[in-house]
Amino acid sequence: MPPKNTVEILIDQFSRLPGLGPKSSRRIVLHLLKNKSLLIEPMIRGLEEVVEKVDYCGICGNLTLSNKCSICLDTKRQEDVICIVETVSDLWAIEKTGLYSGQYHVLGGVLSRFEGIGPEELKIPQLVARIEQNSIKEVILALNATVNGQTTAHFLAEEIANPRLNITSLGKGIPFGGELDYLDSGTISAALTARQNY
Amino acid sequence: MPPKNTVEILIDQFSRLPGLGPKSSRRIVLHLLKNKSLLIEPMIRGLEEVVEKVDYCGICGNLTLSNKCSICLDTKRQEDVICIVETVSDLWAIEKTGLYSGQYHVLGGVLSRFEGIGPEELKIPQLVARIEQNSIKEVILALNATVNGQTTAHFLAEEIANPRLNITSLGKGIPFGGELDYLDSGTISAALTARQNY
Repeated sequence: MPPKNTVEILIDQFSRLPGLGPKSSRRIVLHLLKNKSLLIEPMIRGLEEVVEKVDYCGICGNLTLSNKCSICLDTKRQEDVICIVETVSDLWAIEKTGLYSGQYHVLGGVLSRFEGIGPEELKIPQLVARIEQNSIKEVILALNATVNGQTTAHFLAEEIANPRLNITSLGKGIPFGGELDYLDSGTISAALTARQNY
Repeated sequence: MPPKNTVEILIDQFSRLPGLGPKSSRRIVLHLLKNKSLLIEPMIRGLEEVVEKVDYCGICGNLTLSNKCSICLDTKRQEDVICIVETVSDLWAIEKTGLYSGQYHVLGGVLSRFEGIGPEELKIPQLVARIEQNSIKEVILALNATVNGQTTAHFLAEEIANPRLNITSLGKGIPFGGELDYLDSGTISAALTARQNY
């Protein structure tokens, strides 16, 4: 039998990460063991660095190495637009387009009665305060097009409703490379409704 | 932009692991960051433990916490049968069946001219010596049914050929749950050739 204590503990730890099961974790740990000095030791240092240095921005919830993140510190960005996203990776995905130069607010998840996630857990009170204090003109609801994402967007829209505030959401339709045959009818209906002149 | 230095380094490290790409690594690192004390710190300790304590068995190549692994130390196991496998996870897969109680020899890979992996890299000389010194009666070639696996098996069979030695290989055929429609004709041919009375 393999030495359960040490190796199995590490495999268990990996298998708790998103997207990894017991099989892929076993493969990863065996791969790591093949070259301790080249793989495991740098990873230990990488994890330690992250524990020490990385934190969440006190304003928007992005990752940062100081108190405020580089986006909140950037004075060249538009100050009157806030884009609301679920996670930091959603923020990165939007930044990657290069099309957006406003502020962000990372919720850190979506409302879920089942998981006991309410407005406080998502820093919605802070968002409401931010919108009031900074004379925001537009809020973009860039939540995922899932049931919970859309429920949260709906809740937020009601929470921050204000005649001076323009609340928008991302356009819905066929994704690039999408084949009608494989898309659900909800997407196709949305694309039909949002059709544009060619 | 996200803090590239620290977080991106860790994402890079994860994306070098088998089965992980940049996207899944980003997801994992963001998940880890959500709970440093519950996830990252135990993982650092787990990795450190493994670096310190786990090594390869000097005899068979299995993982072990001491010089010899628990299989090589187990005196109740058959001493005259060696099962040759490519990797430690293959050894675990066979152990899981509970059907085998002999010795193992983990090659740590397969012969590959392309990757410059020759007999020395796979500890084949040690295997030959082990077979001679321990009056082995049977060698089971339990290599993967891939081109490189079978080439290696063929090479090994020639290398260890000896009239006193019974060299066997795993049975070939339809895997459990296999559907003929989805199986390649090589497998079906092998299954036809290896057919048994019902």
